Amino acid sequence: MRMYDILSNKKHGAALTDEEIRFFVDGFTSGEIPDYQASALLMAICLQGMNEHETAVLTGAMAHSGETADLSSIPGVKADKHSTGGVGDKTTLIVCPIAASCGVPVAKMSGRGLGHTGGTLDKLESIPGLQTTIEPERFRAIVRSIGYANIGQSGNITPADKKLYALRDVTATVDSIPLIASSVMSKKLAAGSDAILLDVKTGSGAFMKTLDDAVRLAQMMVSIGVRSGRRMAALVTDMDRPLGNSIGNALEVEESVEVLRGQGPGDLEELCVDLAAYMLLLAGAGASLSDCEALAKDAIQSGRAFDKFCEMVAAQGGDVSVLTGGFRKAPIISPLKAAQSGIITHMDAEACGMASLALGAGRVRKEDGIDHSAGIVLQKKTGDTIAEGETLAWLHTSDAGKLQEAETILSAAVTVGETPPPAAKTVLAVVTEDGVSML
Amino acid sequence: MRMYDILSNKKHGAALTDEEIRFFVDGFTSGEIPDYQASALLMAICLQGMNEHETAVLTGAMAHSGETADLSSIPGVKADKHSTGGVGDKTTLIVCPIAASCGVPVAKMSGRGLGHTGGTLDKLESIPGLQTTIEPERFRAIVRSIGYANIGQSGNITPADKKLYALRDVTATVDSIPLIASSVMSKKLAAGSDAILLDVKTGSGAFMKTLDDAVRLAQMMVSIGVRSGRRMAALVTDMDRPLGNSIGNALEVEESVEVLRGQGPGDLEELCVDLAAYMLLLAGAGASLSDCEALAKDAIQSGRAFDKFCEMVAAQGGDVSVLTGGFRKAPIISPLKAAQSGIITHMDAEACGMASLALGAGRVRKEDGIDHSAGIVLQKKTGDTIAEGETLAWLHTSDAGKLQEAETILSAAVTVGETPPPAAKTVLAVVTEDGVSML
Repeated sequence: MRMYDILSNKKHGAALTDEEIRFFVDGFTSGEIPDYQASALLMAICLQGMNEHETAVLTGAMAHSGETADLSSIPGVKADKHSTGGVGDKTTLIVCPIAASCGVPVAKMSGRGLGHTGGTLDKLESIPGLQTTIEPERFRAIVRSIGYANIGQSGNITPADKKLYALRDVTATVDSIPLIASSVMSKKLAAGSDAILLDVKTGSGAFMKTLDDAVRLAQMMVSIGVRSGRRMAALVTDMDRPLGNSIGNALEVEESVEVLRGQGPGDLEELCVDLAAYMLLLAGAGASLSDCEALAKDAIQSGRAFDKFCEMVAAQGGDVSVLTGGFRKAPIISPLKAAQSGIITHMDAEACGMASLALGAGRVRKEDGIDHSAGIVLQKKTGDTIAEGETLAWLHTSDAGKLQEAETILSAAVTVGETPPPAAKTVLAVVTEDGVSML
Repeated sequence: MRMYDILSNKKHGAALTDEEIRFFVDGFTSGEIPDYQASALLMAICLQGMNEHETAVLTGAMAHSGETADLSSIPGVKADKHSTGGVGDKTTLIVCPIAASCGVPVAKMSGRGLGHTGGTLDKLESIPGLQTTIEPERFRAIVRSIGYANIGQSGNITPADKKLYALRDVTATVDSIPLIASSVMSKKLAAGSDAILLDVKTGSGAFMKTLDDAVRLAQMMVSIGVRSGRRMAALVTDMDRPLGNSIGNALEVEESVEVLRGQGPGDLEELCVDLAAYMLLLAGAGASLSDCEALAKDAIQSGRAFDKFCEMVAAQGGDVSVLTGGFRKAPIISPLKAAQSGIITHMDAEACGMASLALGAGRVRKEDGIDHSAGIVLQKKTGDTIAEGETLAWLHTSDAGKLQEAETILSAAVTVGETPPPAAKTVLAVVTEDGVSML
């Protein structure tokens, strides 16, 4: 078998065979296939596509390119959730403790943020003392003991994905549905859970700008998981506006705690209950979606979900007192005032993320450090009425020199008009093994 | 400007700007743009295409990536010809001396063969003593003195093309019309002639398998040359059957000499007269195509064309005596007998080239040596009647171990039936600045 022929076949629009796909993944991971052939194949895949079978085989080969998590020592149906990334998306910090508090074991591995969307790991690490680098044996012991742990990707998990992603990032081959689906799902399969709920974001703050693309990505990922024997569902959810009011690591943990204590913003709580309900349903914790919704709501109202979050923080060495007593605030908290009166008709989510990045809350490059206290707390969101001079948002940062750029970005993100925008839906579509339901 | 954005633009089907194309060619030639980004762009160009303007800019940037030939010290309209490569295609050895003997200066730079098609340089080097590595000043002096020289590409001509071609060759990105056109034309522009006649081959022995693709390639190349101020024409010619009867380096020189002396096979002589006539017309040596045809025929019949060829061979240090006295023959000359009686309805040209390659006449890899005496002399061609056991072809080689593979390939290349195939045309289309004439 020759890489040349694989390239030629995909260039001419053929479906690759299982053997060809595995030959590529194995050879690229080992270094036998050079970057210049791999990047040409990635471009050919972007332009010629891959069918569901090819993508599933690619995903499987990537999932098995390194170590895989063995969760067999944890009893029960282990559940995982994954978001494709959004601005202010702290749902993992809320949904996982809800599920765990309802008896579904959650052995969660998360990544760091890059660009305008934050990563769960960075958010967790804003809790003083909390460790995210934990040996597999101890990780599993925590899950066996309290039903919930959340660590970083450890060891040599999916090296093929790491190497391919680095190459896609410099060859403009990121935005391909089969390549996104295989990257996400290879990590999910390697992480070892039995049930996987996906939250596929769509809108101005998401990688998938259109609902159509988001649904196609969701279908592709559900299909891949099902072909690997996992219980799968995906919610396609709105990311045209930031989720909740807080953007930035410690600020998002604080808001997550508010939701877990029944005091969070409505849009965020609503989405978290929906996600948790589907996760519980997949894991078999309730007989119907409405049963599972009731379970999730009760987990919040009873305080069990918040208690579970505190147990996880304590088990991973974190200082639980900040969850009730509050985090160290950024030294500079500056208001952004509205320049005109009217109704906010649009607030670009990606630009909000970029403004938070400019304040120090995110990374432009992988090796950048982040300021856990930096970020934005929105006082007004899309649909709200504002008066000129009224505070639109609070900007948190440790560096006064960063304020001006953030203010410029955030001001430009807000469109003020006279007519209220149509009400936004949180969940736009549900994708299961059986098909797509548009909501 | 970032290579990432150039990749993204072409991936999304945009036409690249002049600045983007020059940024890529300059950066890739200097090594600042890595192979893995270049190969991704090549694949995107294969799949998204390039318009005539983009291709012309790409060609210009490649032509100026290194040294260019300065033919200004040679008086007159210098003419060049180029064939896209075929099996048994020795027309350069015939057409150039015809043109030169009619007063049109020919300062020819040729390449080596690779794969199933031969290169003019390899054919010339089968003449004992003939030098193809000649300093530019001496090369021009020969052309000024006798009107004709034929050397290899010297110095640092089109380094961008060399580097890009090497990458295309290992990433399955060879068969793209804009990439083929820019590769060919960058070398032609850098070679410095004023008038360029192209011979674009189509059929089973050519890179362009269909007439449609061949015409599109011809149009693209003519357009590029015209945009650079060159006088351009292209003939689209048949390569469904080998050209002439001989395939292999010394064997092809012998057959060229036969044509130059008025004793060659009809199909080959006819095409050479057509090519020479267009070359003379472009250079302004005659008022009309029929005038130029008459000039070309007279150059052969008078012996002037053969004399010009001998002058060039002598000027480049070659042994002229072999041209009349004959070449050293291969030690093994073995007949291939027909397995059945009937009419040859098809003889696959590419397979004939592969059989010649198997006998030692060509290179599989660039660093391979070649056997100048090896090759094939066809006794029968498409349309001929044969009887079982009659000699179909003579196989020439220095290595008896190579006979069997060549016999197997060549036997399989021949289809014998009962109905004569339709008569073949030599020239299928003429492409000029003014448009396409299908013949």
